Amino acid sequence: MISIDCIRAAAGQIAPHVRKTPTIAVEAVSEPVTDARLMLKLECLQATGSFKARGATNKLLSMPREAIANGIVTASGGNHGLAVARAARIAGVPAHVFVTESATAEKREKLKRWGAEVSVLGAIWNETNEAALAFAEEEGAAYFHPFADPAVVAGQGTVALELLDTVPDVDTVLVAVGGGGLIAGMSVALKALKPSVRIVGIEPVGSPTLKACLDAGRLVRLDSVTSRVATMSCGMTDQKIYETVRDHVDDIVLIDDEAMLEAARWLWFELGIASDLSGAAAIAALRSGRVTFGRDETVGALVCGAGPDGIA
Amino acid sequence: MISIDCIRAAAGQIAPHVRKTPTIAVEAVSEPVTDARLMLKLECLQATGSFKARGATNKLLSMPREAIANGIVTASGGNHGLAVARAARIAGVPAHVFVTESATAEKREKLKRWGAEVSVLGAIWNETNEAALAFAEEEGAAYFHPFADPAVVAGQGTVALELLDTVPDVDTVLVAVGGGGLIAGMSVALKALKPSVRIVGIEPVGSPTLKACLDAGRLVRLDSVTSRVATMSCGMTDQKIYETVRDHVDDIVLIDDEAMLEAARWLWFELGIASDLSGAAAIAALRSGRVTFGRDETVGALVCGAGPDGIA
Repeated sequence: MISIDCIRAAAGQIAPHVRKTPTIAVEAVSEPVTDARLMLKLECLQATGSFKARGATNKLLSMPREAIANGIVTASGGNHGLAVARAARIAGVPAHVFVTESATAEKREKLKRWGAEVSVLGAIWNETNEAALAFAEEEGAAYFHPFADPAVVAGQGTVALELLDTVPDVDTVLVAVGGGGLIAGMSVALKALKPSVRIVGIEPVGSPTLKACLDAGRLVRLDSVTSRVATMSCGMTDQKIYETVRDHVDDIVLIDDEAMLEAARWLWFELGIASDLSGAAAIAALRSGRVTFGRDETVGALVCGAGPDGIA
Repeated sequence: MISIDCIRAAAGQIAPHVRKTPTIAVEAVSEPVTDARLMLKLECLQATGSFKARGATNKLLSMPREAIANGIVTASGGNHGLAVARAARIAGVPAHVFVTESATAEKREKLKRWGAEVSVLGAIWNETNEAALAFAEEEGAAYFHPFADPAVVAGQGTVALELLDTVPDVDTVLVAVGGGGLIAGMSVALKALKPSVRIVGIEPVGSPTLKACLDAGRLVRLDSVTSRVATMSCGMTDQKIYETVRDHVDDIVLIDDEAMLEAARWLWFELGIASDLSGAAAIAALRSGRVTFGRDETVGALVCGAGPDGIA
């Protein structure tokens, strides 16, 4: 789908518009979630509150100016929409963001503050996306896919370059999965630069988008999506994303929504980090005991999105 | 009151129990608050959600074991109480925290989760403190003063050591002021290690505790405290804190509560940082234009406390 060169090029291209987010060692907590050394990369402190700013900005900078003259449209559980709204503001064109009914009120409000037109439509992302595609067609607006786009995947992959720079001795990387763009980009970078790294994806029990494909050995559409975690809910991914994940990712574990809520509360109580539910997925996976490590292992995880979900 | 040696000793003593918090460069924001290079030290990610864990832990480790056998008591706007509750948990003794009526619901809840007994009492901190002192006397519990204690001030001062390590070229440091313990400790460290640093304190218009002393040229008690920012409200500081601030701090600016709320919203929208109102004080001071800088200056500021205040 993409190569490490695309990811390196993306890093250079987006650098003036995004932040190198900090990575913290999880220390001095009252209830540890793992015996391993845990490093958290705080993509919740990225522009717009998630890593999605990387992909959307790279997509913007890969487009000819005339292609976005009529504005940009997308369909999102929230975070990609925010990133697209900001990209449109950088370009000085309008943004129209279709969000799923499960998108949180906080993300909808933030979208408006970024200047986007917001339409709430569809119980799951794939329905929302059809509306966005139809709108793009009608209005002649540029459509930014949240994951099935090499420019977006390359942008998301830049997180892995920074993680390896900061934590070169990382043994295992945990990544939350929605449509699969982040894990596709990160896994290409990680396996190219440090093939020994173990990569574990995390999906909601109620939206096992990639797990279902890996189990079936082909691209499949889920019969139903029952997770309420909008940013991790997706009925079907893309053929190339599936293949990239199949070829680069070591394992995928499923976690229920409640465990992500508890993990978001842990992040707030222990670390003062305001994470959305997807941002807490890696902590939830660690707490579940479904991903295990030795004491000497170094685990890298993203807090991939900001939100008030864990604040009582 | 204390020397740089006390602060260095505190840093060594508390190291196993606190975190070196990350410092981020404020970049890629849509509405900058200053032309200067702005570095934010995220003490909101410190254990218990504020720098107060430093002072309370240093106090704990400076006490003989038998002195805390009957538990620890304090009076707080919230953050010092949380730090004391954690210190008590580390020591395995009970904590009783008296909080002002203006302490936020979120901090009260968090106090309970840290296992503290919580009493809500007093419109301003000095009233709350009288109750705490009476309780300590009755119960034979150890009383941890939030600011007028050399061990606490030395602990808070360790923030400055880390800030200078990370941002050695810092020109101006902005510090929120409640009772004055943080700015006293930090200013001793900063002026000892880099005398050219300009130090600016920030107080609420409705609680100008140190500003009133500096204007009067002596320790004074405020006629009234009208700020709703509990963590920055204090009717009277301590003689030695006053003298330390008088001798080391360059300026104090007053900011109204509403500006701090707006600044907390800015931190959330732009940076994904969930700050309490005191944590946003430095941003509010920058936005007000009341502290000005050249383009080439490097400004260091703390986000000193975590909270949901800026999340709509």
